[in-house]
Amino acid sequence: MAKVYLGYKKGLRVEEGHPWVYSNEIEKIDGDYEAGDIVEVYNFKGRFIGKGYINPKSQITVRIMTRNKDEEINEDFFRKRIETAYEYRKKTIETTCCRVVFGEADFLPALIVDKYGDYLVIQTLALGIDKWKDTIVKVLNEVINPKGIYERNDVPVRELEGLSQVKGFLSAPFDTTVETSENGVKFFVDIAEGQKTGYFLDQKENRASLKDIVKGADVLDCFCHTGSFSLHAGYYGAKSVLGIDVSEHAVEFARRNAQLNNLSDVCKFEAHNAFDVLHKWAKEGKRYDVVILDPPAFTKSRSAIEGALRGYKEINLRGMKLLKPGGFLITCSCSHYMYPELFMQVIMDAARDAKKTIRQIEYRTQAKDHPVLWNSGETLYLKFLILQVI
Amino acid sequence: MAKVYLGYKKGLRVEEGHPWVYSNEIEKIDGDYEAGDIVEVYNFKGRFIGKGYINPKSQITVRIMTRNKDEEINEDFFRKRIETAYEYRKKTIETTCCRVVFGEADFLPALIVDKYGDYLVIQTLALGIDKWKDTIVKVLNEVINPKGIYERNDVPVRELEGLSQVKGFLSAPFDTTVETSENGVKFFVDIAEGQKTGYFLDQKENRASLKDIVKGADVLDCFCHTGSFSLHAGYYGAKSVLGIDVSEHAVEFARRNAQLNNLSDVCKFEAHNAFDVLHKWAKEGKRYDVVILDPPAFTKSRSAIEGALRGYKEINLRGMKLLKPGGFLITCSCSHYMYPELFMQVIMDAARDAKKTIRQIEYRTQAKDHPVLWNSGETLYLKFLILQVI
Repeated sequence: MAKVYLGYKKGLRVEEGHPWVYSNEIEKIDGDYEAGDIVEVYNFKGRFIGKGYINPKSQITVRIMTRNKDEEINEDFFRKRIETAYEYRKKTIETTCCRVVFGEADFLPALIVDKYGDYLVIQTLALGIDKWKDTIVKVLNEVINPKGIYERNDVPVRELEGLSQVKGFLSAPFDTTVETSENGVKFFVDIAEGQKTGYFLDQKENRASLKDIVKGADVLDCFCHTGSFSLHAGYYGAKSVLGIDVSEHAVEFARRNAQLNNLSDVCKFEAHNAFDVLHKWAKEGKRYDVVILDPPAFTKSRSAIEGALRGYKEINLRGMKLLKPGGFLITCSCSHYMYPELFMQVIMDAARDAKKTIRQIEYRTQAKDHPVLWNSGETLYLKFLILQVI
Repeated sequence: MAKVYLGYKKGLRVEEGHPWVYSNEIEKIDGDYEAGDIVEVYNFKGRFIGKGYINPKSQITVRIMTRNKDEEINEDFFRKRIETAYEYRKKTIETTCCRVVFGEADFLPALIVDKYGDYLVIQTLALGIDKWKDTIVKVLNEVINPKGIYERNDVPVRELEGLSQVKGFLSAPFDTTVETSENGVKFFVDIAEGQKTGYFLDQKENRASLKDIVKGADVLDCFCHTGSFSLHAGYYGAKSVLGIDVSEHAVEFARRNAQLNNLSDVCKFEAHNAFDVLHKWAKEGKRYDVVILDPPAFTKSRSAIEGALRGYKEINLRGMKLLKPGGFLITCSCSHYMYPELFMQVIMDAARDAKKTIRQIEYRTQAKDHPVLWNSGETLYLKFLILQVI
């Protein structure tokens, strides 16, 4: 097994538990290896740090899988890790729909496994984990015994690893429109064509937290995607819900989900660009009791942060202006680089411009099946706020 | 009405919505006034900021009550504010037990009103609000119609305002040991002798968040006070719960609360100093599935932060060492000056010393009936974390 040595005082972060070794932290590599092989990682003093898979093509050259020198990376390893991950979910949440494996935070770097009822969707986002795909599928069949498994590896990030984008069945074919439920709300997931693995599981408890404040309310849900927040609002007793999304396909899907829950009278969906219509509607005097803002990540990198700040400020300002006095703004950011303090600062700036006073009712992050590994800050990405705007 | 003028570029914070005017921010005061009177506040350019009560004896010389120049501070004002505060609770939470008025965050500076079943407990913590006590009691009787009201003004902070410490009935006398409930758990509140107003209402939703992780678990609850976390753990299906508190009186009360819930077999309470016994028990090899740490504020001032950091690190380190691998640490800080990032840093330091990896399952703050006014940072004080320690 090849040995990777970090440079002098390089990669202290890795020693403290972060799973990623960047190419510029490596001093030398002793021994032969192929891309995707398991290697041992040592610090500059020759102290063992961990074992992981290597990919010289990737900026993240090694991803640590274990800190235990005696632990072999084999089928048993994956069985133990996946069992532990699934046990954790069974202990902490209702597992009808959930993320079973959240990559680094489950000590299985670059592996995502989502469960929608009886079906699993997986992503292997790095070469070193992709090599184990057959093993992972075998273990998932043993541990979870799903009716089918689908691969959603049609994501650009795989190309940084020299992998191609693919998707398809890893089991006998099945109908990829899966009906399932979350917090009592039913919905279809389009696991072949939907965003990510078909649904955003990371807001499960956040959606449930709408419960009291939407009762009897007129709700506007911006960036509604397939209607998850809208349907929860309807289910929890909102008087009216308008969900908007720029994608006609998403809106069509949301309508179908409303039908599935007998909520078509309450939950309406329209295809609009939020940035355009919010401004117009505010001017026209439209006002809501609750406005939900769950935009896509305005930035996926540190460098694009300025534009993202403008985007978040703009949308939050417009959201506030559409609220009745004392109404509730539910606002999210799913970009890691919008740190919690920064996100709150942006909303504070928007409030100042809108001459509004903000009372924070609840601050939440991502769902429990997306735990945050403190040693790997990237695993914290979702911010969710319920604010009263006075 | 006297007019208070802020100095050149002083008190921008107040203009942006913070309710406190410090003595060193004031340039001059035009007109006569007595301590406790309502005054108008202007910035250095003569722009009206708000109206509030003044106390030249206090470092916080004026506390703003309204930003509306035309709004008079009278019985109607208090009725409107208290009605709004109560409506907000009725909308967002179950109100059997709750904080009805949370001072600054409800735009009624220095007023606390807590509700325990049919009884109210109030605190008027500044001279200017204390003067309105009779009015407030009258309005509370009209709006909430309690069976009785008790005053818990036996708090040292009143002396900074030149007020004496007092407690007693503001209604016909009643039995001050009140039986009530929270999240389905019953408990007695000693509103005459218990800490603060008798109970810590600010952890209501946090206690409910124990639900899944304590099932079948051996739980250690440190600084248990009258047993609220312990009883929730028992109620949610823990196998065993040991609550410890340095106060024999608190422990005795906790036992009574366990009896009330038929949980005496599961929930045991012992009087110990947590700092002493945790060290000893860890050495003896005792291990728990869940350890709860809800210590009193180790610091109530910015200056005592160093000692507080040591205290929090110490207790969290000891808590981690008492956990089985993969067990859950539930850890809190109720000190405003332990900012969230600082608190997490301390726990991270403790984890490093304990050679543990931390996964964050949930991060919460204070209960919804203790909303956070963003313009008044002091209103955010409670941090609550559920961490898995690996």
